[in-house]
Amino acid sequence: MKLGLLGVGTVGASTALVLRNNAAEIARRAGRSIEIVQASRRDVSAGMPEGSGDIELTVDPFEVVNNPEVDIVIELIGGYDPARELVMLAIQNGKHVVTANKALIALHGNEIFTAAQDKGVNVVFEAAVAGGIPIIKSIREGLSANHIEWVAGIINGTSNFILTEMRDKGREFEDVLSEAQALGYAEADPTFDVEGIDAAHKLCILSSIAFGIPLQFDAVYTEGIGNISTEDVVYAGQLGYRIKHLGVARRNNGGIEMRVHPTLIPEKCLIANVDGVMNAVLVQADKLGPSLYYGAGAGADPTASAVIADIIDVARTII
Amino acid sequence: MKLGLLGVGTVGASTALVLRNNAAEIARRAGRSIEIVQASRRDVSAGMPEGSGDIELTVDPFEVVNNPEVDIVIELIGGYDPARELVMLAIQNGKHVVTANKALIALHGNEIFTAAQDKGVNVVFEAAVAGGIPIIKSIREGLSANHIEWVAGIINGTSNFILTEMRDKGREFEDVLSEAQALGYAEADPTFDVEGIDAAHKLCILSSIAFGIPLQFDAVYTEGIGNISTEDVVYAGQLGYRIKHLGVARRNNGGIEMRVHPTLIPEKCLIANVDGVMNAVLVQADKLGPSLYYGAGAGADPTASAVIADIIDVARTII
Repeated sequence: MKLGLLGVGTVGASTALVLRNNAAEIARRAGRSIEIVQASRRDVSAGMPEGSGDIELTVDPFEVVNNPEVDIVIELIGGYDPARELVMLAIQNGKHVVTANKALIALHGNEIFTAAQDKGVNVVFEAAVAGGIPIIKSIREGLSANHIEWVAGIINGTSNFILTEMRDKGREFEDVLSEAQALGYAEADPTFDVEGIDAAHKLCILSSIAFGIPLQFDAVYTEGIGNISTEDVVYAGQLGYRIKHLGVARRNNGGIEMRVHPTLIPEKCLIANVDGVMNAVLVQADKLGPSLYYGAGAGADPTASAVIADIIDVARTII
Repeated sequence: MKLGLLGVGTVGASTALVLRNNAAEIARRAGRSIEIVQASRRDVSAGMPEGSGDIELTVDPFEVVNNPEVDIVIELIGGYDPARELVMLAIQNGKHVVTANKALIALHGNEIFTAAQDKGVNVVFEAAVAGGIPIIKSIREGLSANHIEWVAGIINGTSNFILTEMRDKGREFEDVLSEAQALGYAEADPTFDVEGIDAAHKLCILSSIAFGIPLQFDAVYTEGIGNISTEDVVYAGQLGYRIKHLGVARRNNGGIEMRVHPTLIPEKCLIANVDGVMNAVLVQADKLGPSLYYGAGAGADPTASAVIADIIDVARTII
């Protein structure tokens, strides 16, 4: 099974290294050997990470997508363009796609899945929601006997880190945000995190899996944590609550309600105790009742963990 | 896909009803229709639950296992005998097996899996550990890129219910145990729950999945909650700890350490806040880091949820 890797940032580098270092175990689990044969990165001179093996590197991602040797394209570029064009072309070329790109799936997923179905290829995206937590697999396969009633999740690690620091240390929003950027949790442009757009992307994908509906990013009510003050957080604590930035999707009369906003949660609830950059998704299902999935929602290795699980799944299910 | 059901207790009845009520959705997910064609129960006169469809009922489970129409045998009898003989015979007859029987898998799993591999059939058992929580799927597939370092779980709901009541209401062990039996959480003979044997069965299975080792029930150090007094629980609380009955398995120099016993956990830890009959498993993996899976560890519908997820998985993966 030969892979083409688009993007050699922190997640791409970790994916290449884990695939190489754990090659024997991954081959055993997938039922066949798996290797990256070609990768693209903007700055070719930076090369591939040491120890990732003999991987041809190109500056042109279209070369990877058109490489006849490649069976699965791993899209880790992020953003809408050229990711969308690359993924659509990969599908047209009959290649399976593994992606961690929530923005792409949330906005262009319907078109992408239709094309994939027409060509009989898989497009999988576990890493797009809640990082390394196997939440899409759990809902789609683990809870497959259930009707899902609602999902509620802490699905943006940056917002949760900021709210946790504000509560634990009484720090101001702007101050914590700067630290989050310095630590690499938040993007240089933190708009997507702080205004709730990143969480809305993920909620939209989660809803589509949980309720079997098309992706409808425009239908998500989206509010970030920008208006939360340190006083709000402290007062909430004194009243026995925590302020958490949640994505909530719920079956409603004739439809699905989707919203992303700061929420007061009683401090005894499990999800109120999910702190720092960690993510958690609570799922209410008719047979199982409530279940919760907690783990690292971002970071190079946790995201690579989900990307590689997807690769192994694709390798196992295709003939 | 035709199923044979062994045992029509609460889980068996729920499984039959959900398969019937959600037949269309389950068929869509499995890629084929799924129905129970024959079931066995000791008290045939009790019949099948109303609304479970046209299912032939017999008193003789061997008739189901030898029924040439049956593709998958669902073993929900529990206990060692005749479950072991039935499962081995089902495998010899070329049938796949779905079971919720932790005692059987923990003690006879090695023999069963060897026979299944020889015959090229699947034996799956998601419901055997932590009830409806998809923990086996999560570790085996969701975390397939990782080396697991340790697992720690609250995997016996009865013990957790008793400890929670002792803490919250200052009640005595014997008093809560009687209530748990009346509520149907604990078996009439509560030995397996209270002495940690049930948790040891589950930990043994969990370790085998997490570390890829044979099942070694005899190697589990097993201690129950029988010696915990209400005073212990209250004092622990005053010191900022909770007493939880944990199953822990950890890589150690050259081997795997497995133990089941009451543990002091700082009350700020997420797993310390898992109360009542709920279960949770914390997994430490080298790439993902810590992740936690929480939900109902017992009960008819949650267990049926896991049994049916297994049935759908088998239906999807066999040709």
